[in-house]
Amino acid sequence: MHLDQSGMEILDDGECRALLRRSTIGRIVFTLQALPTVQPVNFVLDGELIVVKTSSASRLATAASDTIVAFEVDDIDADAGRGWSVVTVGPARRVTEPDEIARLSALPLRSWAPGERDQFIVVRPRLITGRRSPDRVPLRAPRS
Amino acid sequence: MHLDQSGMEILDDGECRALLRRSTIGRIVFTLQALPTVQPVNFVLDGELIVVKTSSASRLATAASDTIVAFEVDDIDADAGRGWSVVTVGPARRVTEPDEIARLSALPLRSWAPGERDQFIVVRPRLITGRRSPDRVPLRAPRS
Repeated sequence: MHLDQSGMEILDDGECRALLRRSTIGRIVFTLQALPTVQPVNFVLDGELIVVKTSSASRLATAASDTIVAFEVDDIDADAGRGWSVVTVGPARRVTEPDEIARLSALPLRSWAPGERDQFIVVRPRLITGRRSPDRVPLRAPRS
Repeated sequence: MHLDQSGMEILDDGECRALLRRSTIGRIVFTLQALPTVQPVNFVLDGELIVVKTSSASRLATAASDTIVAFEVDDIDADAGRGWSVVTVGPARRVTEPDEIARLSALPLRSWAPGERDQFIVVRPRLITGRRSPDRVPLRAPRS
């Protein structure tokens, strides 16, 4: 097990991808009007591609395509003092090819948010990193 | 109630701040080696300031201070098809004044992740926006 300087376990590529596959909500980070922003979205994997569906008029479709984005998934139990986080970075693009749209339309992707969704955005993870708290970490050092 | 183009309710400033106050985990977005990244952190509010504690050697302390960051909190129930998200953007800085360190040290801030934490980072929200799914939105239109 490799630990980073704060004692978090550094996850390998396979573990990161397995955690991505198990997740349904991620947070996509992009730049909007020169400022960073982040939006929670439902997603599904198509091979290694992260697939998101949005409205073609949305901020996501207009600002987060044809650019480099970060995409994060996590599961944190603040009370128990444990959790993990996986961050990928890679190019995002709008899907315009009819064959690809047809294939992606068959994926089990549904959204927590309302609204018409007619635009697929895919992110290709180029970098993927993850950290997990080791098991049974006390939140406070025991009092002596 | 104001709705955005996708049918999400747009939250006003007071609602956004109330949701921030109720949250204990947020995701801070910053730039690391010219790439966007995002890290889940525990936080607490000190007035309107978002207060995070980290190691002085951490990526967060070295890359996310004296810069503009985004900070996001959310609560999403993917199965029920509802949730909300609040995003703030503002300058982050390391706290170096002893008086301020003493005041922040008294705040009820603990971390889900292990590691020594000797550095406070504060974010001053300059922009704050939030969206919430309206109640009882069906995930699928009823079949006719």
